[in-house]
Amino acid sequence: MDPFRLEGSHLSILDQTVLPREERWIEVRDAQAMVDAISRLRIRGAPAIGIAAALALAIEAERLTGDASVRFAALKREAALLRAARPTAANLAWAVERVLAVAGREEERGDAQSWAAALRREAIAIWEEDRAASRAMARWGASLFRQETRFMTHCNTGGLATGGGGTALAVIFELKRTGRDVSVWATETRPLLQGARLTAWELMRERIPVRLIADGAAAYVMARSCIQGVLVGADRIARNGDVANKVGTLSLALAAKDRGIPFVVVAPTSTLDSDCRTGADIPIEERDPMEVLSWQSIAIAPEGVGAENPAFDVTPARLVTAIVTERWIAAGPPFHLGAD
Amino acid sequence: MDPFRLEGSHLSILDQTVLPREERWIEVRDAQAMVDAISRLRIRGAPAIGIAAALALAIEAERLTGDASVRFAALKREAALLRAARPTAANLAWAVERVLAVAGREEERGDAQSWAAALRREAIAIWEEDRAASRAMARWGASLFRQETRFMTHCNTGGLATGGGGTALAVIFELKRTGRDVSVWATETRPLLQGARLTAWELMRERIPVRLIADGAAAYVMARSCIQGVLVGADRIARNGDVANKVGTLSLALAAKDRGIPFVVVAPTSTLDSDCRTGADIPIEERDPMEVLSWQSIAIAPEGVGAENPAFDVTPARLVTAIVTERWIAAGPPFHLGAD
Repeated sequence: MDPFRLEGSHLSILDQTVLPREERWIEVRDAQAMVDAISRLRIRGAPAIGIAAALALAIEAERLTGDASVRFAALKREAALLRAARPTAANLAWAVERVLAVAGREEERGDAQSWAAALRREAIAIWEEDRAASRAMARWGASLFRQETRFMTHCNTGGLATGGGGTALAVIFELKRTGRDVSVWATETRPLLQGARLTAWELMRERIPVRLIADGAAAYVMARSCIQGVLVGADRIARNGDVANKVGTLSLALAAKDRGIPFVVVAPTSTLDSDCRTGADIPIEERDPMEVLSWQSIAIAPEGVGAENPAFDVTPARLVTAIVTERWIAAGPPFHLGAD
Repeated sequence: MDPFRLEGSHLSILDQTVLPREERWIEVRDAQAMVDAISRLRIRGAPAIGIAAALALAIEAERLTGDASVRFAALKREAALLRAARPTAANLAWAVERVLAVAGREEERGDAQSWAAALRREAIAIWEEDRAASRAMARWGASLFRQETRFMTHCNTGGLATGGGGTALAVIFELKRTGRDVSVWATETRPLLQGARLTAWELMRERIPVRLIADGAAAYVMARSCIQGVLVGADRIARNGDVANKVGTLSLALAAKDRGIPFVVVAPTSTLDSDCRTGADIPIEERDPMEVLSWQSIAIAPEGVGAENPAFDVTPARLVTAIVTERWIAAGPPFHLGAD
């Protein structure tokens, strides 16, 4: 399931805010439209927003005119806005930096057209590398589970969250593809219900049995349904193995630890941030309280009540059984993760 | 906040399914109507449904005609339906048994009218004892927190869940009443949002600052907002101190334990079930998956997806710091709780 289509001078993205009710594709014709789409979570998932930002910069570059330095300065302004659209996902800043590095290297070398073409090549490379990373993570991750069939997952980590392949959900797809009779318990993932709306949808498309549960039911269901592995993605991983991921991940990790169930994080190496020594260094995005206070514009709480809406939490490395990337599996704790 | 009004030959109950949008009172004129109201959660909360069932039996008794044995047999049939309406709350069976015991004792003693009057007296006694229990629990519970001001709670444990006083929330009301500058972080409590709809409403009425959070955010918010105590109610408590309560309680207990935050259960002694040696003996109600799959009749997941909807979970005694009843505080673990 691929959340993008690159069509000539514009990109189409599948609007994930209206799934599964509607499969609506939105045209993105400049970087500013992508900033908006990322902020509103029309496109979400740490790897996916990295690719989205890179593609948006490539499209933006094709629109820019003027001297090389003028174009580069304009591109850097858009890059800063893209990077700030969501502060927690490491992949967003990482992908923007990769495109900017090419833009800087190519700045003086040719005309506007070849400059833009170089950026497009880099953005597409990021996308293709992500697809390859998904395939590799799927195989590495599947190798950890030789017999297990009953998994729990949180939020959405499938094709929609990446360049089409997936992270944690890719492991489950791989187990299914290789003949394992897998079942998945998916947390609905409040407030925006990515589990109920997106993960359930992707699993049903792959004909994998899925049961939705309220987030609060995860600890109890883990015990009574004999869950054999908890698989999640990541938005940023610190050098010591602390993992920022969708809020609610920490609760799952605590419950898994309490029951002795493997808790496995699956993410490409672009999610590692060697500037973060521990999870305390990871910025946690605080989103609009209205996401908690209403649903589909219907209030669910008394008027005037306050709410807090951290989009992510940090799971300490001591609760993590293994981290799977496209290049290696780190078993821990402790973890000592390098820059790549 | 009182969820009942006894008005002559009928009872009015505040429909908790439409709060806070609407304050709608429903007339209940026989036991069958109360079975329906309890099953649909128009009235909910373990102590409240005990009182509701007792009052329903009293009202039913006033409608019954015929010989003493015929009336008693008819009452027992209604009692069985009431008790089965929700299997987890110990208070429901306990209150029904109390009224039936009086009905049996008074069966041969007088006419239908005096029989019904005795049942009404017993039901009102159960209600009044519950109010007194709330006052006592509030004081005992408040005595545990000499300095603390920052609390987290789950589901609804205020007046609405009881005969007007509250259990866990009563402790917070008491701290406020005695001048403490308390703040509450309330989990929304999916799937039916009793935290968002009912707890927020009760706290706002008492002018206590409240911040709603998604259930999945509890573990993270506990740490970042320096929560000093987690207070919850209970639906059934086993002799060893294992506690069945609204699903999601176990996750809060695990997070509190991990952070060293006191996790305190507040419930009247009518919630203790000496027939349950441990939590494994407690029946856990499984409710309609549609409660998870839709909200206000709007689907939140793809058509055809499955869901599991346990209404409660069991928190093992090892995660419980103290159990507060109207008669004592038990500090543990371990706990050795008697029949009363």
